[in-house]
Amino acid sequence: MNHVLAADIGGTNIRATVVTEQGELQQQLRSQIDLGDRKLTEDALIERLATFFSGILNDKPDIKAVGIGFPGFFIGDTGVLVASPNLPNLHHVALAEKLSHELNVAVHIQNDALCAAIGEQTYGAGKGVRNLLHVTLGTGVGGGLILDDVPYTGEGGMAMELGHLRVAYDNAARVCGCGGSGCVEAYASATAISARYAEVTGAQLDTRQIYERAHHNQRDAINIIESAGHYLGIAIAQSIKLLDIKTVTISGGLTGAWLLLYPAIMTSLDAELIPPLKGKIKVHRSILDDNAGIFGAAAIARVKQ
Amino acid sequence: MNHVLAADIGGTNIRATVVTEQGELQQQLRSQIDLGDRKLTEDALIERLATFFSGILNDKPDIKAVGIGFPGFFIGDTGVLVASPNLPNLHHVALAEKLSHELNVAVHIQNDALCAAIGEQTYGAGKGVRNLLHVTLGTGVGGGLILDDVPYTGEGGMAMELGHLRVAYDNAARVCGCGGSGCVEAYASATAISARYAEVTGAQLDTRQIYERAHHNQRDAINIIESAGHYLGIAIAQSIKLLDIKTVTISGGLTGAWLLLYPAIMTSLDAELIPPLKGKIKVHRSILDDNAGIFGAAAIARVKQ
Repeated sequence: MNHVLAADIGGTNIRATVVTEQGELQQQLRSQIDLGDRKLTEDALIERLATFFSGILNDKPDIKAVGIGFPGFFIGDTGVLVASPNLPNLHHVALAEKLSHELNVAVHIQNDALCAAIGEQTYGAGKGVRNLLHVTLGTGVGGGLILDDVPYTGEGGMAMELGHLRVAYDNAARVCGCGGSGCVEAYASATAISARYAEVTGAQLDTRQIYERAHHNQRDAINIIESAGHYLGIAIAQSIKLLDIKTVTISGGLTGAWLLLYPAIMTSLDAELIPPLKGKIKVHRSILDDNAGIFGAAAIARVKQ
Repeated sequence: MNHVLAADIGGTNIRATVVTEQGELQQQLRSQIDLGDRKLTEDALIERLATFFSGILNDKPDIKAVGIGFPGFFIGDTGVLVASPNLPNLHHVALAEKLSHELNVAVHIQNDALCAAIGEQTYGAGKGVRNLLHVTLGTGVGGGLILDDVPYTGEGGMAMELGHLRVAYDNAARVCGCGGSGCVEAYASATAISARYAEVTGAQLDTRQIYERAHHNQRDAINIIESAGHYLGIAIAQSIKLLDIKTVTISGGLTGAWLLLYPAIMTSLDAELIPPLKGKIKVHRSILDDNAGIFGAAAIARVKQ
């Protein structure tokens, strides 16, 4: 038996699952966490995580490794949390090492969007490719990059801020949460899509409700989703012009509207690429969806347990 | 003695130099070549290059390796020319291997802009860094990328088409040679700057003449160079948001106007970056200038002779 414990930590909750060697998910556990709590110290964070994970591991002495996707910046596979937008007070925390010490098993931690990319490449829609650009569509727009089979984090762990690529520069460019404007996140995130739908129709709906309306041929819903796809295609094209990656996977709630989203993405992607790259890029919908990060966490746990 | 022969091949000429182990350039030789000749076959290209290089090597039996920067796409360090915009009829030519066979010495070939990046990292303004983004400002705008000490070519050898990153999306966006519009090359290449200057003033000048006018406080010249810097800063920012690289070097004729160009680049770069990256990026003027490619060719020749 070569099972691992894999977890996906978000701003408000932890999901953890035992993953078998065959990639089956067993017994999912959830717990609340408030990473936004400004009083959360380094010690308190580690204690909180150690308590949760040891509660699971105590019952499973055969599990020798834990993999975690975490919303923060990590350099390479060091497991050192450089910084996290959720945890502005914490810097350079040896998170993997300290948790490993507490839990007495190997612990590997990586950025959450990069974990999703690793999951998609190991078990999902990017299986078999050595180079992959993965795009996550959630409350924000994120990216994860695998180059020649190695997860890419950049010099400071902040690579693939794909959500902040500019797709509009004019005065009407939408304002982004980063303080800038014209970022693709301001057009294609779940937050942006809900806000745009409310602007146009006056109704406050979530992405799922909006794409259900689109499936029922509601014009405003269709337009907003196609527009999101248009801008996503532009951002993906800019990435490919730099990286020359042939395979892109996309996960997140909005992919529920794939039949509308995909043609819109492909049209603007193809229009934006330089001639030798046109028509050469494959864009796939994630097959792991919400579990891409969990599968990626399992993969990093497995590599070096 | 550990000298190598290093060459930079352009669309119309070859420059070759013996480079000593200490990085001194000895005895520069030039020869004309017409890569744009549609009748140039694979055999004719190799014969043309072999004749030129053997003429030099015959006098220098101690030289055991040749490095070449070439305007084309290469995957990794294979020396296989995948394609070249200059040579549309040639595909997948084992250029390094065939030249090595003809010349009876080791031959290493890499993309010209990437060679300039390697040169800058080995001997120039990027010396000592493991990650470098190099921007070349010539008739086009090009890019070369070193990641963790390894030159990055992308899956198909077409990485770092930085000149075709979009910096304008509106209807007034300038048309680019690639067929698209709004590419940074349409704002910051020597061609674009001369064309813009002619539009505004009616005078046909080259980049050097334009920046000399700027140094003499001619307002139109200053505006056009600052505008080029503004757009370059935007394109560099998009690259850094994806790659998280801390060091950028820039070479090419326009860097003669560095005192105008640099502040314009830094202002838009800083405005475009996400908060944790603002103020963290170093942008240096090349110290090798036209010879960056030659030094890079020497470096690749030296690595594996």
